[in-house]
Amino acid sequence: MASLVFEHPQENSTAHMTTSPLDPEEFRRQGHMVIDFIADYYKTIEKYPVLTQVQPGYLKKRLPESAPYDPEPIETILQDVQDHIIPGLTHWQSPNHFAYFPATISTAGFLGEMLSTGFNVVGFNWIASPAATELETIVMDWLGDMLKLPKSFLFSGNGGGVLQGTTCEAIVCTMAAARDQMLSQIGRENIGKLVVYGSDQTHSTLQKASQIVGIHPKNFRAIETITSTSFALSPEVAKEHGMWVHVDAAYAGSACICPEFQYFIDGVEGADSFSLNAHKWFFTTLDCCCLWVKNPSASVSSLSTNPEFLRNKATDSKQVVDYKDWQIALSRRFRAIKLWLVLRSYGVGTFLGSHVKMAKIFEGLVGMDKRFEIVAPRHFSLVCFRVSPSAISKANPSLSDHDNVNEVNSKLLEAINGSGLVYMGHAVVGGMYVLSCAIGASLTEEKHRAMAWNVVQEHADAILATMD
Amino acid sequence: MASLVFEHPQENSTAHMTTSPLDPEEFRRQGHMVIDFIADYYKTIEKYPVLTQVQPGYLKKRLPESAPYDPEPIETILQDVQDHIIPGLTHWQSPNHFAYFPATISTAGFLGEMLSTGFNVVGFNWIASPAATELETIVMDWLGDMLKLPKSFLFSGNGGGVLQGTTCEAIVCTMAAARDQMLSQIGRENIGKLVVYGSDQTHSTLQKASQIVGIHPKNFRAIETITSTSFALSPEVAKEHGMWVHVDAAYAGSACICPEFQYFIDGVEGADSFSLNAHKWFFTTLDCCCLWVKNPSASVSSLSTNPEFLRNKATDSKQVVDYKDWQIALSRRFRAIKLWLVLRSYGVGTFLGSHVKMAKIFEGLVGMDKRFEIVAPRHFSLVCFRVSPSAISKANPSLSDHDNVNEVNSKLLEAINGSGLVYMGHAVVGGMYVLSCAIGASLTEEKHRAMAWNVVQEHADAILATMD
Repeated sequence: MASLVFEHPQENSTAHMTTSPLDPEEFRRQGHMVIDFIADYYKTIEKYPVLTQVQPGYLKKRLPESAPYDPEPIETILQDVQDHIIPGLTHWQSPNHFAYFPATISTAGFLGEMLSTGFNVVGFNWIASPAATELETIVMDWLGDMLKLPKSFLFSGNGGGVLQGTTCEAIVCTMAAARDQMLSQIGRENIGKLVVYGSDQTHSTLQKASQIVGIHPKNFRAIETITSTSFALSPEVAKEHGMWVHVDAAYAGSACICPEFQYFIDGVEGADSFSLNAHKWFFTTLDCCCLWVKNPSASVSSLSTNPEFLRNKATDSKQVVDYKDWQIALSRRFRAIKLWLVLRSYGVGTFLGSHVKMAKIFEGLVGMDKRFEIVAPRHFSLVCFRVSPSAISKANPSLSDHDNVNEVNSKLLEAINGSGLVYMGHAVVGGMYVLSCAIGASLTEEKHRAMAWNVVQEHADAILATMD
Repeated sequence: MASLVFEHPQENSTAHMTTSPLDPEEFRRQGHMVIDFIADYYKTIEKYPVLTQVQPGYLKKRLPESAPYDPEPIETILQDVQDHIIPGLTHWQSPNHFAYFPATISTAGFLGEMLSTGFNVVGFNWIASPAATELETIVMDWLGDMLKLPKSFLFSGNGGGVLQGTTCEAIVCTMAAARDQMLSQIGRENIGKLVVYGSDQTHSTLQKASQIVGIHPKNFRAIETITSTSFALSPEVAKEHGMWVHVDAAYAGSACICPEFQYFIDGVEGADSFSLNAHKWFFTTLDCCCLWVKNPSASVSSLSTNPEFLRNKATDSKQVVDYKDWQIALSRRFRAIKLWLVLRSYGVGTFLGSHVKMAKIFEGLVGMDKRFEIVAPRHFSLVCFRVSPSAISKANPSLSDHDNVNEVNSKLLEAINGSGLVYMGHAVVGGMYVLSCAIGASLTEEKHRAMAWNVVQEHADAILATMD
């Protein structure tokens, strides 16, 4: 064959090719090095200020203007991570991180991410890696079962679950499905008439998703909620108007695997879709949003494309799930393997219980201290509190009006976070500026919880003292 | 303080808490184990059929019906990965994977992913981790420079780059921005009049993004392209109609860091946005799509939300980039660190050159073999070819019509992929069913390229022989 003659000289010419960038032994050597680097980071994480103290533009001053021309060794790069990156991190894995929500991770979640990254399969459809698709359908049914979701949300009941990156992606997908389902009845030209409802406590992601799928901005309606109903929305009207109801349980949904919290999703059988973030309070690294839908074909008809290069017998047979049609992107990572590792490695409920217990203690201490008040009921591991108007009035009666109370609390948070000892969050609820303490970092123990409360008290003391 | 009295008994009650799921020493032990597992996988990857040979539903038969009640050790789980997951993988990192596109990864990309996962920062805005945001602005300028993108796409020229997950996300974002920019001029009620144009060779992701952002499906226009213009589209009309032009260089864009390929993006200065996937041919693990835009404020005004809980001084000062407003999701991973590691660890161009060289050889062999023909010009490392109508006619004159030619080529691909020795892709171009061989897996050497060509020839021989 002519080909053989042609090949030989070419084989010589590539003989001096540089070692593969995926050489297994070099991978092994450097991989071990980075495992040690990260383990040491966790071991010493408490020495860093939780909230970074760098100023805008800090990194540009420390790094070169352009990419290096010559390759650099991993040792140099890791030293730079230590010297220049770590100081600019806000340490989400610190046991003293109580802001936003618990980004609770675990060794199992990390290992799952390593396996996903190592295999690096691009699992758009079944054939591109059946294990990735099938494991996802299996773990989503497992987790749905643990949550006691109605069978209609599971594959075993003709619904089904899918792993999205984040809640916003999940909501974009369900909203596109809901939009197209309605437009197929009333005509596509009526897109301007569609309306999205949420409560004024609903996460901003609902509004963003609504913007993305082309809902007229004036048709996004935030319904006012009040203290007396715990800032909750009544779902009563939705059914009679044929509305698509999505329940976003991003953070707290995880707790519903515990029997004592399961009642929080009572009524979910009336919803069309339900989501929670395993990367929030389920020990899985970012990103991993679990979405269950009752009617997968609504998503598929809204999100599917069938280009020739992806055609294959398995898809044509309709015996398989092609997850590309359940999400925004075509390419997708093997996220299921990290959730699988987490589900197998831990009794997750035990850990969630310990976080809730710590939050209860924190809440109890706030409640017993006359300087503070609990603003919204604590159900899980998030405590919303503030310095009470009466304490401020006692310190200085002329500063007890609404705006001043908010300002004092805002200053308190700034002082707490500026200390570097702990990092807490805030929100405005019913016009009140409140501090939020979300307990659930994987390394958080009772001693960290105790320190957090001490830091709050010390700074409150200092601020109230200056108001005299 | 009352709190001290209250705390002590509680501290006792949590004293028996299970070890943290992120215990540093356990993390270290298990992390090393998984590094070895993955290194061994790469070392032995050639022993697996590239395209999986499992049947739909295989995994359900092998795994339990529900999540285990008791925690299982990592050793058991890894054994299951070996026994049940690996057989169901299509091995994208195999040196014999030539399908779809090169998902070219590297040790540096993997290590970057480990660091990103280890820190697990949720970098929605600057304050949530300045290092993540600032490193991203820096590496996007670095890479833009390497590509010789016009300065107007870089931060240093008032444009800017952002890391998205995938091309579809990048296009949804730019299309939402383009949509809202136009609707702000013509009125939101005219969303039904907006039109999206692509070529009939454009990736299906454009159509999907168009569906997602609410463009009327009949207003997605695929313009027919022809062989004589190499299936390319002329950009001439866009400017005078004030259209937003996006250039999607998902796979081949990476090559434009090499001087000899830079001319392929000549004219990009006329575009509004440009994207390429570093997780395709730039040694970075999935997902990592690089998007540059000339007018970041168009994206921001389309995608921003400003909930109270994210308010902070840095954002209010307008001195920082908050990437949440450049993308679909709120939460975001620290993807920049993997691109940074890749850019520092390798002279990427050398590797790309070696892939192109192998593709050239493959193309040369196809061209010299009368049984085959090259269907579309090869510019980079993707070769599109088929068994020629004349070879089929020679084997059996009654089977040389268009449909039969396509069927023979489809059967050839099935035979090649069924062998498990290599995995190639296909497309339909100008009505012709073509085989595609994309060279660029990180472990691919000349010997694998040579084997691939031998496999193609053997199966073509066999198929042509049965046609007599």
